[in-house]
Formats: sequence, structure tokens, C-alpha cells
Amino acid sequence: MNETPRHTLVNGAVADTVAVTDRGLLYGDGVFETLAVINGVPQLWARHIARLQEGCARLGITPVDATLLAEEAQQLCTAADRAVLKIIITRGSGGRGYRPDVSCAPTRILQRHPWPDYPPGCATDGVAVRLCRLRMGHNPLLAGIKHLNRLEQVLARGEWDDPDIREGLLQDQDGNLIEGTMSNVCLVQGQQLLMPDLMRCGVAGVIRALLLELAAAQGIAAAVRDVTVNELAMADEVFLCNSVIGIWPVVRIDDHDYLPGQLTQQLQGLLYSYPGNEH
Amino acid sequence: MNETPRHTLVNGAVADTVAVTDRGLLYGDGVFETLAVINGVPQLWARHIARLQEGCARLGITPVDATLLAEEAQQLCTAADRAVLKIIITRGSGGRGYRPDVSCAPTRILQRHPWPDYPPGCATDGVAVRLCRLRMGHNPLLAGIKHLNRLEQVLARGEWDDPDIREGLLQDQDGNLIEGTMSNVCLVQGQQLLMPDLMRCGVAGVIRALLLELAAAQGIAAAVRDVTVNELAMADEVFLCNSVIGIWPVVRIDDHDYLPGQLTQQLQGLLYSYPGNEH
Repeated sequence: MNETPRHTLVNGAVADTVAVTDRGLLYGDGVFETLAVINGVPQLWARHIARLQEGCARLGITPVDATLLAEEAQQLCTAADRAVLKIIITRGSGGRGYRPDVSCAPTRILQRHPWPDYPPGCATDGVAVRLCRLRMGHNPLLAGIKHLNRLEQVLARGEWDDPDIREGLLQDQDGNLIEGTMSNVCLVQGQQLLMPDLMRCGVAGVIRALLLELAAAQGIAAAVRDVTVNELAMADEVFLCNSVIGIWPVVRIDDHDYLPGQLTQQLQGLLYSYPGNEH
Repeated sequence: MNETPRHTLVNGAVADTVAVTDRGLLYGDGVFETLAVINGVPQLWARHIARLQEGCARLGITPVDATLLAEEAQQLCTAADRAVLKIIITRGSGGRGYRPDVSCAPTRILQRHPWPDYPPGCATDGVAVRLCRLRMGHNPLLAGIKHLNRLEQVLARGEWDDPDIREGLLQDQDGNLIEGTMSNVCLVQGQQLLMPDLMRCGVAGVIRALLLELAAAQGIAAAVRDVTVNELAMADEVFLCNSVIGIWPVVRIDDHDYLPGQLTQQLQGLLYSYPGNEH
């Protein structure tokens, strides 16, 4: 039996380092996933792995053996009541300079983290957020992918210290609302769910995609398109979503107040009762 | 005496790994420099370190002890006749999620690489290059910095396999010419040196900056501004520059031919005779 603490597996072995030649370090040449682990089970596993593989495919990284990943995730998480599993796949070591070599063997890194100590009220009473100054650049070839080039998020998250501000919202260079630093953002206009288009920048979250499916199945109108900051200010409801927080209503953006709304609560109910997504 | 091969130093110790918690790996949260080493001496050291420190300052990474870096570089390079020294500074481990923690202790990675086996004719006869399809995104907060978020360069460099194509030129999303994947690009129009503006994207190279100084000192007219692809096609001379290649004349871009020109040769002479930049 496994009785030693195992917090990180690198290519299947307990380890806490990677090679200095790894292209994940040199160029941010890889992708990652962040999963909630409840009672030893990584939630929405198939959806996260599908997105991971799609990201690898778009970057030309060799597909990962999903069975192997599942075994390693189980080894790391089986004893965890509540935890966060981060999976990083890099292109591995090799290639000449920036040029990716097709023979690169990807590096698999699985890290188990403690469940974050967010106040329980975040999901019920909502959270205060801010609008960040940083504007995201456009790159359609990278848009949607949860890749390792995250300096925009690092700089945006460095804009504030106030622990009561739970998230920062990001606009693109044209002033379109895109996402939060660690979450997707959704608006409610009347009875319609509205999500920013992520074809030019941003990360297409697993929960965001699931919410669109759940909305469609319930006959809730939804649109994905460019969203202006003015629409954000005029929205009836605003919420954040990701795999760890689930859904957090937004009750304040800078000096503008909102109320946790009915459609947000309905979507929380749908999300938290979705099979394989315990909370 | 140091008789063991020492190719990589991590925080001053011989090592070939970094922590899986390093933000350089997790987010590409760091900067790097690539220096030519000739007869054991890293060339243009002060300029590279100044740019490294400026990059750290812009990202809010604790400044590095330059004396320490110099000692480590000497330890690694003193026996090298001709080599390439790569210096990577990451923000280190720590912080919560994307949020950078001011107490993060930066990671110093120095790697000595073999001198690349470029044909000697590259600098005299010139090279063939191509125009890449990938368009660079705009981010003024990151523009100019030689940071570790290099997926655009990886994808661009993945566009071609032909070993006779030595470099790919990149445009930004608006179609302005910006740089090469691993070099800066310069044009000559008549007797004027013309360099793309790098305020929205691109890496502001050490050789590029030095060439502007050398041109000014010689009374050579120079301009830094937006450059169109049409101007590239109409240029009298085109060349690439970086710290390892020095200056390479461009003699072909896709189906368009150029001749190695007089001003390019004059700048090669000035660059190669510049004190502290042997070739």
C-alpha cells in the first residue's frame, strides 16, 4: 500500500523537480488543467482530459496516454477528501531553439494541492471583483487553450493586494470583456445567459462549456459573442466560474453593486447536481 | 581547480533540474538572455545584464545580484573557446496562484550550450528567410521584454522544416513587420537604417540597441517606427541580428531576392570591431 505522502508525480515517478531543459520552463511550451478532487475522485475528468488533449493537438504536442494519466491521478488523489489536482503536460526536452522536434517526449506533471480556504459565503453571498488595467493581446492560434504562457494573468493578478477582492476581470486590447484571471465570467441580461467570445484570447473553461450545455438542455437562452464593459455594468447578474470555485455570484465590481440573481442560482443548482461534479 | 564538466548552474550549484513549483515552469514567469561566449568571455555582458534587470523590474521580479551572476558565468564559461551562455531568471517558487508574492526568491539558471554550427557563409553570403503566417498579439506591458512566454515563437518556428530557411519573420496582428523568431530584423532604405517599433510586441534585442548607437555615432540615419510588409519587399537591404549570429544579410524572403548591401556590411564592420564584442 502507498503510505508515503505523494504530492507530485513527474512522468509517473514521485519527484519534485523537472529538467532545466524542459521546454515548459524554457518557453512555456505546454498546457495544464486544474481539477477539483472530491472524495478521492477528480471531477469532470473526461472533460478536462479532452480539453488537455485538444490543447496538445493545437500546439502539436504528442497526445498523452489518458489511461496512464488516470492511473497517476488516482494514485495521487485516492486518499484525498478534498483537494485540487493540477496536471501539466509540456512538450518535454529537445528540439533546436524554438523549433519543436516531433520526437520530443512530453513531460507529465501531476500535482496535488490543498483545497483553497475560500470563505463558504463566496458561492452564496457572492464576491467583490475589480476591473484590471492590463489588456489582453489577441492571438487566435493560442486563444482558448489553457497553455503555460501566463504572464498576462500574473501581471493582472499583481494589480491588487486587497484580500476581499476575489478576482480581477480582464478586457482585451479593444476593450471587450474576456474573463477573470483564474475564471470565466458570465453575464445575465434579462433571462439570457451571455458569455464573452474567446476566439482571439482567453481560456475556454470546462465549466463554461458545461454551463452552455446545461443551459441549452434547460431551454435557457444563451449567447457567446463580444461583450462590452458597458454591458457588464448594465448586466442583471454577473458570475464567475471555474472547476474549483464552481459558480460565484459577483456582487461588486469596483464601485458598482449587483445582487446574486435567480438565473445564477439556477445554474449553480444545475452545475452542482451534474453527475460527476460533486460539491 | 574545477575539472568536472559544469554545464548548468541553478542558484550557483551544479544541477540539471528545477523545482516543479517554479513559476518559470508554471507560468513562464521569468526572463532570459542569450550571450555569445568567445575565449571564455561572455560578450556584451553589461548590456545583457542591464536588459535582464530591466525585464525583472518590469515584471516585478526581485533584482538579481549582478556580481553573483558574473561569478557564476565565469565559472561556467572560463574554459569555453566558443559557446553560448543562456541565463534564465524566474520569479522562483511561491505566491498563491498567479499572484506574485514579493517574498519570492528568484531562481538563477545559467546554461552553457555548444556554439551552433551555422555555415560560415551566413554572415557573408546571406540567408534565405520566410514570412510566417502567425501574427503576434499586442501587449505593451510585455513588449520589448525577453520573457519566458514564447509560444508564439515556438508555433512560428514550427511552420517550416526546410533547413535552408534560416529564420522566419513575424508580423503583428495589424500586419506590421516586427522581428524574426530568434532575431531582430532591420531594413535599409537608401542610406537610412529602419527598425520596427517594438512598443506593442517583440523583443528589444541587445544587438539592435547597439546598432542604433553605432549608427548614431557614425552619422548613419536611423528610424524606429512601424514598418509594413510592403516596405520590407521594397527595401534596398534587409538583415537579421542577434547576439550569437551577429548580423546576417537576408538575400531571399520567400520568392523575393535581395543582395547583401553596403550599409549592412558597414554595420557588420562596426559591430564586429566594437570593444567587448569579438567574433
